[in-house]
Formats: sequence, C-alpha cells, structure tokens
Amino acid sequence: MSETNTDPVPRNDGEARAQSESHCEMNEYVLPQHANAMGNVFGGQIMAWVDLCAAICAQRHSGRMAVTAFVDDLKFVKPVRVGEVVHLEARVTATFHTSMEIEINVQGENARTRERWPCVDAFVVFVAIDDDGHPAAVPPLLLDSDRTRASQAAGDQRRQARLSKR
Amino acid sequence: MSETNTDPVPRNDGEARAQSESHCEMNEYVLPQHANAMGNVFGGQIMAWVDLCAAICAQRHSGRMAVTAFVDDLKFVKPVRVGEVVHLEARVTATFHTSMEIEINVQGENARTRERWPCVDAFVVFVAIDDDGHPAAVPPLLLDSDRTRASQAAGDQRRQARLSKR
Amino acid sequence: MSETNTDPVPRNDGEARAQSESHCEMNEYVLPQHANAMGNVFGGQIMAWVDLCAAICAQRHSGRMAVTAFVDDLKFVKPVRVGEVVHLEARVTATFHTSMEIEINVQGENARTRERWPCVDAFVVFVAIDDDGHPAAVPPLLLDSDRTRASQAAGDQRRQARLSKR
Amino acid sequence: MSETNTDPVPRNDGEARAQSESHCEMNEYVLPQHANAMGNVFGGQIMAWVDLCAAICAQRHSGRMAVTAFVDDLKFVKPVRVGEVVHLEARVTATFHTSMEIEINVQGENARTRERWPCVDAFVVFVAIDDDGHPAAVPPLLLDSDRTRASQAAGDQRRQARLSKR
Amino acid sequence: MSETNTDPVPRNDGEARAQSESHCEMNEYVLPQHANAMGNVFGGQIMAWVDLCAAICAQRHSGRMAVTAFVDDLKFVKPVRVGEVVHLEARVTATFHTSMEIEINVQGENARTRERWPCVDAFVVFVAIDDDGHPAAVPPLLLDSDRTRASQAAGDQRRQARLSKR
Amino acid sequence: MSETNTDPVPRNDGEARAQSESHCEMNEYVLPQHANAMGNVFGGQIMAWVDLCAAICAQRHSGRMAVTAFVDDLKFVKPVRVGEVVHLEARVTATFHTSMEIEINVQGENARTRERWPCVDAFVVFVAIDDDGHPAAVPPLLLDSDRTRASQAAGDQRRQARLSKR
Repeated sequence: MSETNTDPVPRNDGEARAQSESHCEMNEYVLPQHANAMGNVFGGQIMAWVDLCAAICAQRHSGRMAVTAFVDDLKFVKPVRVGEVVHLEARVTATFHTSMEIEINVQGENARTRERWPCVDAFVVFVAIDDDGHPAAVPPLLLDSDRTRASQAAGDQRRQARLSKR
Repeated sequence: MSETNTDPVPRNDGEARAQSESHCEMNEYVLPQHANAMGNVFGGQIMAWVDLCAAICAQRHSGRMAVTAFVDDLKFVKPVRVGEVVHLEARVTATFHTSMEIEINVQGENARTRERWPCVDAFVVFVAIDDDGHPAAVPPLLLDSDRTRASQAAGDQRRQARLSKR
Repeated sequence: MSETNTDPVPRNDGEARAQSESHCEMNEYVLPQHANAMGNVFGGQIMAWVDLCAAICAQRHSGRMAVTAFVDDLKFVKPVRVGEVVHLEARVTATFHTSMEIEINVQGENARTRERWPCVDAFVVFVAIDDDGHPAAVPPLLLDSDRTRASQAAGDQRRQARLSKR
Repeated sequence: MSETNTDPVPRNDGEARAQSESHCEMNEYVLPQHANAMGNVFGGQIMAWVDLCAAICAQRHSGRMAVTAFVDDLKFVKPVRVGEVVHLEARVTATFHTSMEIEINVQGENARTRERWPCVDAFVVFVAIDDDGHPAAVPPLLLDSDRTRASQAAGDQRRQARLSKR
Repeated sequence: MSETNTDPVPRNDGEARAQSESHCEMNEYVLPQHANAMGNVFGGQIMAWVDLCAAICAQRHSGRMAVTAFVDDLKFVKPVRVGEVVHLEARVTATFHTSMEIEINVQGENARTRERWPCVDAFVVFVAIDDDGHPAAVPPLLLDSDRTRASQAAGDQRRQARLSKR
Repeated sequence: MSETNTDPVPRNDGEARAQSESHCEMNEYVLPQHANAMGNVFGGQIMAWVDLCAAICAQRHSGRMAVTAFVDDLKFVKPVRVGEVVHLEARVTATFHTSMEIEINVQGENARTRERWPCVDAFVVFVAIDDDGHPAAVPPLLLDSDRTRASQAAGDQRRQARLSKR
C-alpha cells in the first residue's frame, strides 16, 4: 500500500486525464445512525465518507481498483447535526507513478436555509492496484492550465514531505 | 402526509425558486453491506438512496423538513454490483400547494471504465412540514423557460393521475 | 430484469402453487438506526423492508432467486415512530411467464396499545432468475377460488398498464 | 432490570390476555451485512433478532415498554447462510408479577426449496417498565386450556430455577 | 455445530495454551445506532458484541475458525446508555475435545466518571471448525495453577449439565 | 472545535491523571459489513474505529464529552481482511489547555495464527466540551517519568506544527 519512489514518468502524454473527468460529488443526509450522543455526525463517520468519495474519484482517474495509502492531517472546523447534510467534493490534485493525491472538501449544509460551512479538508493518497493486487501505473493528470500545473507542483511537494516524514 | 387538494396558488411570484437551486447529486460506492446474495445492490437499498436524495432536494427547495408522500412506479433496468457506483440526481419537476414532485435519475457506473447505464427513474412527491408537523406552503418552481413550464405542466397531469387513482 | 412479453402459458396445471404457500409476514421493531431527524422511520427504510418481504415471497413461490423489476406507485399514509412496529405482509397476486406480481401491505403498529394504521400498500414485480442469471419460468398461481381468479385477472390488467406506460 | 420476587397475584382475572394476542412472527432475509467470514449469519445477529422479536411480543402482551432481563441458555443447531431466511416466532409462555417469559423458536429456511431446519430455541424474560422506568405489573396470561396451564406451570418452574441459580 | 461427546483427550500436553494467550478485551462506544427507543443499548446488540468478543477469543485459542454452539443463560443487570461505553472481556475457562467454553464479562462504563457497573455475564461454547467445515480438535487449556484447574473442572460440570438438559 | 491558544497552565498539579488511567483497547472482528469489494476493511471503517477508540480515551482522561478536532496524517501500511481482527490501542500522549493529543496504534491480526502486523498509527486531538458545548479545561497528563515528560514535550512540538500549518 506504500508508494514506490520511482524515476519521474511523463505526466502529460496522450493518455493524461483531465481533472474534471474524475471529479466526484456526494451529498449525505445525516440520520441518527450517523450521530454521536450529542446529535452530531461523529468524526469517524465523516472520515468514512471522505474515504469513499476519494475512492470513487481515484477509480475514475486511474481506471483501476485503488486503496487508501495515506491521509494528510485533517482539521475538523464545525460539526454537522442530524437532519443536516454533509456535502463532499473530491478531485485529483496530483498524480505520481502508481498513486494519486486527491483533495476532498467537506462542508456542512443546512438544506433548509442553504447555509453552508466548512467542516473538514483532506488530502488522501490512493494507490492503484492491478488484478493481482500489485501497484499499477496511474495515468498522469492533464496539465492543461496554470492551475493544474500549480496543483501538480504542490502535490509533488506534499509528497516529498510525506516521504521525508516517515 | 397526504397532499391537500386546495385552490390554485400563484406559482411564479417573487419567491419562486429555480430548479438549479435545489438540484442534488449523490454518488454511492457499493460495498458488501449494500448487496444481496448475488453481489448486486438489493432493490430496497436503491429505493432508500432514492428517498434520501429526493429528501435533500425537497428541503433545499422548500426550506422546510419534508416527508415522503408518494413514489410513482419504478422500473429497475439493470443491476449494479459490489465495487461499482450508484449515481443519483434529483431535481424538482413541479410544485403544488404544500408538496413538490421530484424526479430522481439513478444510474449504475463502473468507475474504472466510466461505463454508465440506466438503473431506475423515479418521481417522488414530498410534503413540506412546519414546526408543528403540519403541511406547509411550498415556494413555486421558477417557470423561467419553456422547459420548466413543460415540466410543471407534466407534473400537474401526473398529480391529477395520482389523485384519481386513489 | 425486464419482463419478456411472451405467449400465454398455462397457469393452472399440476404445478400451480397456492397463494398461501408463499405468504410472508414481517414485524420490524423501529430503532433509532431506522429513523430520520424527526424520529419517524424514513421512507427509504420502509421501501427497503417492502423489497425484502416481497423477495422472500417471490423465492417461496418461484423456487428461484428473484430480482426486483418493477414497483408500482406507493402512497405513504401515516408515519411510524421509533419504538413502534412496522408490520408487513406479502402475497403473490398474479404470475406471468417469468415474473410474479406481489402485493405488500404495510401497517404501523403501536405494540403497547395494539393500535394499527395503514402505512403504505405496494405492488412489486419480481423476475425469477436461473443459475446463469437468465429469467426463468415461474410456476403459475393456483386459481382455486373466485378470489384468486379475480386477483390474477387484475394483475394481468396492471401488467398491461405497466407495459403500455414504458 | 431484575425481577422482584413478590407475593402471588391473580393471573386469570378479567384482564388476562390470550397467548395468541401477542404472538409475533418475523422473517429476515439474510444479506452479506448479517454474515461472518464463512457466509453464515453470525450468532450475535441471530441473538439480536431473537431479542427484537421477543420485545415486540412483550410489548403486545404487557401494553408497556419492556426490557430484556434474562435469556435462558441457547443451543445453536444448524447455521443459516446468505440468501436464506431466518424465521422467528415468539409467544408468551408464562407471566409473573412484573415480568413475562417468552419462547422464541428460530428456524433457518431455504425459501427456494422451502426446506426448514431448527436453528435455535430460546426462553427470554422481559420486565415491563412504566413511564418512570420502574417495573410495572404485567397482565396475566389467559389460562384457558390445558396447554396454557401447563405452559404457565412450566414457566413457574423455570423461574424458580433462575432465581435459585443466581 | 453440536459438540460430539468423545472419549477424554489429554488436556495438558505440550501444546496446551495459557488462558492469557487468548484473552480478548473490547470497548464499544454506544451510539444512537445501537440504542432502543429509550436510549439504552438494546439487549440484542449486547448479545451480538458478546458473540464477537468470544469468537475472537475462541480463534486465538484454537487457531481455527469457530462457531457459536451454546450460550448459557444471561442475566441483564443494569442498562447502558447512549454516550456510555460497553466494556467486554472474554477468556477461555475450559476446553473439551472440539469445543471451548468462554466466559464473557460485560460491564457498563460512564467514561467521564469512570463509574463501572455489571451489565451481563455469559458462558459461550464455540466449536472449532476445520477447512471442510467439520469440528476439529481444540488445544487444551494450560492447567498451570489451582485457579485454571478449578476453572476447567467447573467447565466440565457445566458441560455435563448442558448435555443432560438437551 | 478548534483549540484556543492560551497561556500555559500548570500540567502537573494534584489533579493530573496518569496515562494508564485512560488507556483504551479495542478488538474488532472484521465482518463483510466492514469490507470493500476486495474483501479488505475499507480505509474509512478503520478511521471510524480510530475515532471511537480515541473518543473513549479522551472522555476517560478529561471526564467530559470530547469532540474530534484534528487528525494528524495517517499512513496505511497493510490491509486487514474479512475474518481477521483489527486491534486498536489509544493513550493520551499530551494535554493542552482544553484539548488532548491521543495516539492510536492500529494493528491487523490473524487470530488463528496470532500473526500481527502494523496497519496504521494516528495522532488525534480531541477538545473537551462542557454541558453548554463550550471548550472546557482538561486535567494535565501526570508527568511522573522521563517517558511521559518526553511524550508531553513531543506533543507540544506537534501542536506548534499544527498551529503553524493552518
């Protein structure tokens, strides 16, 4: 499940995939089955949704099964209550040899007032897996704008930080 | 939970809300916990997601809690398997005095191949509820195009069919 | 999962099965895990139980795995609260070549007062499936009384309505 | 939650309730979410259904909320697999001052072959609870036949055994 | 799943395993998804945790998959509420030819005050299963102290009581 | 839910609590309901257990309800499969004014072979909450050994890193 630190591979060849192709949105209606004793979604449930939203995004980009390898630190800003909505959006921010970095933005929403507030932001790294369960090459992110090029560069830096930390 | 058949109310006044304001999208990663003995999502789980997706849409449009009053007939076209994705989109197609008609389009998706196929389409009627649990007035759908006017008209016809059937 | 519209087959031969043989009753105690933010069973949970109750009935009648193909429109009459009971009864109302129509009657019950109230009624069509996943012939419903003959005739009419609608 | 050992109370007065009034039947379709790693329902899930089925029966008889106080020993005879059905029946076998003994018979069923096999039998004791959470008097079981009188007598004996054991 | 009553086997040979090797502790935070309508863990959920805790202990001792065969009677002493903790400890108290007796001690805990109270005690018998699903020999419990010898002797007596009862 | 950066408070006064007092161990038997399409626990489920284990530990130390404020980065090392066990241990590594840092060590275990392997390690920060939902003072960690003093010092450094990052 760990990323192999390999030589650089071309990221913008013909098979590169645009960020928009794998974008994934989820809206989850908070029920008592998701809540803690105070009537808020408990943190672990939000983390579970983060993982599922990112997993769909990772499969859409890589065309393969993918497993969670790394979750960057998460800061929980404001709780979400029963009867409210957890809104998640995931997009690929950078690709590496056999892994992808995915940013997930989580907001709370009161669907009745349409008020939205930040709940948590996360960077998650998924490794693509072939049919034998081995890490497999990931198509590069299409670097077709200053924004995506900056996104890939920032992702490369975060990757270096992850590799140096452990 | 039943719709009261009241005198017509103006639907396109200043408080009308555009269809796009309450649109709701869900993507659900199918896990073994959602499956039947054959490894497909069982029909009842899909119906549960249909109801939740429509409920978020109904609250966004009406600004109120809302309860399921009616589900038009559902045709299940093609199953979705464990490891695939159930993709749902809900939008308000018509509003009545205290209720809303919401269409939910459900597709199966293989996130790895990006293949999508129709799974089920549904019309669900939700009744808006005030704080005392009584039906409450619903803002009209903004009839700002031929498409939305046709949508409201078709919804009015389906409503007549529902009222005559029971 | 769709019904094939085939030539009529004999329904009352020696292998016909009585309605009583496949009758299925369920009683579900409503817990917070089934509830929405208002303390009622949410509509999708009731639909999930409807599907499971009908699926048992369909397997008992057909002797095969069976998948949900069609759900006729559902009207939710009165909610059921946490601590109350959802009572379901399913019975085969008509059989076709490879499919069965099943009626599910859902009631709320306060087990302490024994008060019961209508919650929802549904007709669901299941297709029988052989070991290769293909539709398989369904034993006819035993038409041994005026009541069952009327039930089959009404089911035939509802089936025509379903086929013409889509 | 313990039973108070009080003076005998009349059990067959005008308010006695027949066994048939509180009988409860459940049928549960076994899904992967109920299974262990071997594809069988795990024992704890069956015990959970036993408790819920008995709880409905206890409420129907006593007209009150009721809590599990005692479960007599359970012998698991034969497993039930994913795709099969767990069939439960509960009935009041004896009443005491503030508690009831309920027998639950659990069978496995292959709904396709209609084969049924014993899974587990249980005696569960529930205590009736008033609105303040205190034990409350339970209506006696109607002793209207030799069978129910023998049932009450056997229940009285099992109760003595329970009280002496602890 | 039943225990075969075979000739005695040596229990304290070289392969005997100490009680401490298979000891299993669980702490479960009670969420609304585990509760009944009164905000307490419902009895069936506790029984499910008892079964899972004992199953881990049984696998650790026997080195095999193991299935629930028998649950001795359970007395529920005091409820546990949402926001509190269910604390379970399981240890092997005796071994037989192909089965093990496991005692599970369940306590409620208010994690904030550190108050603990008895909830339920249970003896559960698990049968070890080989890869073909047949009962398999269980390593004996290491009888290395007066305490464990007394534990095995008491377990042998409870086993005789179980075999005579049914 | 954010930590307020306040003046230093004495951490080793009479009310300090030893690390061992709040230690929490969980063992979770992996069932199909916890698995992804490949038969492994999905990452989000592990994160949910991490959060629950840490929440119990946080309540035991602080004597208060506590909410997840921050999760340091997580590295998933090796998956855990259905039929195996997820073993978690949580302990308070440092305390701040109204928050606590808790380390959770997660291992996979094959209960049959007793093989254990690292799955994930996490630092989670919880904020203590008073009855009005406001952050409340947390008892200091008892610094009664070189090891706990080093633990607190390292936690102080990680806290500075968290505050500087956001």
